[in-house]
Amino acid sequence: MHRNVFFISDGTGITAESFGQSLLAQFTGPEFRHVTLPYVDTVKKAAQALETIQQSQSADGTQPILFMTVLNEEVSSMMHASGAYVIDLFQAFLPGLEQEFGQHPLYRPGQKRSTHSNSSYHRRIEAVQFALDNDDGCRTRNYDKADIILLGVSRSGKTPTCIYLGLQFGIFAANYPITEEDFELTTRLPAPLKPYRRKLFGLTIHPGRLSGIRHERKPNSRYASSQQCQHEVFSVEQMYRQEKIPSINSTDYSVEEIATRIMAMTELERRLK
Amino acid sequence: MHRNVFFISDGTGITAESFGQSLLAQFTGPEFRHVTLPYVDTVKKAAQALETIQQSQSADGTQPILFMTVLNEEVSSMMHASGAYVIDLFQAFLPGLEQEFGQHPLYRPGQKRSTHSNSSYHRRIEAVQFALDNDDGCRTRNYDKADIILLGVSRSGKTPTCIYLGLQFGIFAANYPITEEDFELTTRLPAPLKPYRRKLFGLTIHPGRLSGIRHERKPNSRYASSQQCQHEVFSVEQMYRQEKIPSINSTDYSVEEIATRIMAMTELERRLK
Repeated sequence: MHRNVFFISDGTGITAESFGQSLLAQFTGPEFRHVTLPYVDTVKKAAQALETIQQSQSADGTQPILFMTVLNEEVSSMMHASGAYVIDLFQAFLPGLEQEFGQHPLYRPGQKRSTHSNSSYHRRIEAVQFALDNDDGCRTRNYDKADIILLGVSRSGKTPTCIYLGLQFGIFAANYPITEEDFELTTRLPAPLKPYRRKLFGLTIHPGRLSGIRHERKPNSRYASSQQCQHEVFSVEQMYRQEKIPSINSTDYSVEEIATRIMAMTELERRLK
Repeated sequence: MHRNVFFISDGTGITAESFGQSLLAQFTGPEFRHVTLPYVDTVKKAAQALETIQQSQSADGTQPILFMTVLNEEVSSMMHASGAYVIDLFQAFLPGLEQEFGQHPLYRPGQKRSTHSNSSYHRRIEAVQFALDNDDGCRTRNYDKADIILLGVSRSGKTPTCIYLGLQFGIFAANYPITEEDFELTTRLPAPLKPYRRKLFGLTIHPGRLSGIRHERKPNSRYASSQQCQHEVFSVEQMYRQEKIPSINSTDYSVEEIATRIMAMTELERRLK
């Protein structure tokens, strides 16, 4: 048995999606089939959305679930009349907050940006650019300007984590790939990192997972072999221990979780407040 | 007057933050000061959080607002007893869904990933890598594998948009920077793009904004001059019109909005369903 789930919004729908998925993940029973309908901000678009919702209902006879973040009142009442099981995120809390603040809500969609000033949006884009400029492949490494420097062996998740730290939190994250040569004589800290000890944070990963990821990049290479991955992960973990570098094992986490856990562990300040 | 706002979660806190900011943006009255406390998943961490919340209350005598996505029941009741104005996102809807599905919720934090299978998480990471591999600076351009190819002049937002399309939607997005040389003789489509006409999507931007962004990168350069920016933007917009390439003006939108609008305009399928 499955249930059709709609995320409807007069904005991007990202909040409805993210919240809806958190809630549905608490239920293992039905299989959920998702459709996101963003920018439903006119009666015309609402009528199209209604048609899609009602088609899905008549096609398989189960009542659709509808998560909605809609401020437009006409659109909102059309959705409430759809026959779906409606979870109306705004309506659940706006009246309470209205009373709490003694003020009418604006009921204006797409307002989220206004809580971030322009300058903090700008900061995020600058931070993504910083992550790209200071990534593996590049020679420029503005470690002085970095808020954090991620260490890790090749393919342990440094690049996406740096980008996400920039995009979500406005953090300037550089990265330093630890390669075999760094372990040739010792597992002490590579020289270029020594002046930045307090900014260092290590990523590690299960060797089997690493090997899988590397095989996709370079199938059947020495680089991807179990033995090589074990050796590199073992050495890098030894380095983190010896040098007392805080670290996280990324194997079971999504990029969002790795980044948020790093923020929590290092008490880096979110730059976007 | 200001109000202290806490986003509390036993997960990353990203949902509480994103939803809370959407709600607060509907009120212009008080100035909101945000603090996010992620991974509050033990009684000990909840006690620390409580202390922070209550300190803020006694420091400035206003009742804090608390947005929470907490599944741990002990942590949840401690927060409800904090004296803050509590918006409990899970408790508002879980009982209704429990009845709807005839099943108890798992009450297990960090479950969100499970709605995305491992393979779709993998797809997102691959898509981010694709965006990086096929960015401006690089010579490899796997346009055959791309779901979409973004066009635009330098600094019009192509790179962050490609990354976000990968990270959020699993879309393989390449980009092609339109440079002055492309306009030397004509504003027709550059030859390398011709085989991929159906995948093309244009970004444009207000020339004044573009000039501001470029001045930060290369102050007082010809590249950043108003005249140069006007010329490039005018030419690229002419190209989009002549060649019937759909396009979006990024000036007033965040990366999230640009990406979501592109998804809606092109009816690209989200790859992560």
